[in-house]
Amino acid sequence: MPRTPSDTARAASDRLRESDLGTDVSFLLARANALSVSAGNAALAPFGLKVRSFSVLALSAGEVRPTQRDLSEFLRLDPSQVVALVDELEKRGLVERRPDPADRRANVVVATEEGRSLHVQAAAATRAAERSLHGDLAAPDRRVLADLLARIAYPG
Amino acid sequence: MPRTPSDTARAASDRLRESDLGTDVSFLLARANALSVSAGNAALAPFGLKVRSFSVLALSAGEVRPTQRDLSEFLRLDPSQVVALVDELEKRGLVERRPDPADRRANVVVATEEGRSLHVQAAAATRAAERSLHGDLAAPDRRVLADLLARIAYPG
Repeated sequence: MPRTPSDTARAASDRLRESDLGTDVSFLLARANALSVSAGNAALAPFGLKVRSFSVLALSAGEVRPTQRDLSEFLRLDPSQVVALVDELEKRGLVERRPDPADRRANVVVATEEGRSLHVQAAAATRAAERSLHGDLAAPDRRVLADLLARIAYPG
Repeated sequence: MPRTPSDTARAASDRLRESDLGTDVSFLLARANALSVSAGNAALAPFGLKVRSFSVLALSAGEVRPTQRDLSEFLRLDPSQVVALVDELEKRGLVERRPDPADRRANVVVATEEGRSLHVQAAAATRAAERSLHGDLAAPDRRVLADLLARIAYPG
């Protein structure tokens, strides 16, 4: 049978997987993350969220009450990106900026009741997307993966 | 002792790590990848490369001879981004577009001798950056991590 263009693309893709780059941990991280972000954004679209705005909402819905600087450092985003994400969520009534009791020059970002409720639904959608993306990994494998990733993600 | 702003930031960061989001596999992937891309870009800067252009150069220096479409699919980049990256490398004399012997309508991207030589040096720099970022992981842990990531990165 003659090879179709998609046979050829599949063959190239299989061979690229086996290349030095295709088996490199940093590259595998980047590719796994790209698939994870695509799946996450698709799952969050019905809520008007993306992975980044969801992360800000999730951290604001917890007990830590992060400042914008905490969010910027933890999410590895520029302060200006965090300000834009908080603005967007605040306009939708999902989070509020409140004075930080520990430092009156700073604000903490806190989810509103509506934000907390949307977070619960959106978090369930991201978990479903994650299960589908990681379908091949059993729970113990996922725990090992999380532990190993945490050692890279949280150095020192 | 009074808490300095950096004590406060450290405490918030420690508490955010323990939040639901901070222990989620998708978030750990994103954060580990963000650190890995920063370290990779810093290591590649002396060669005038970034993680993305390095990936294109690395795949062009191997034996697969990918088309631009293969690169786009494998690297999860838009075709227009791949064209821009190949243009940039071609202008520097590091890669060439050559007609694909298997399909005369397509071009394959092939590293020049200069490109191959730069790739060897740049790859050594990225490996050193990776070792420093993953310093905490012993070789067997790194192999387990690579295997688990590959199951997410290469579904089906």
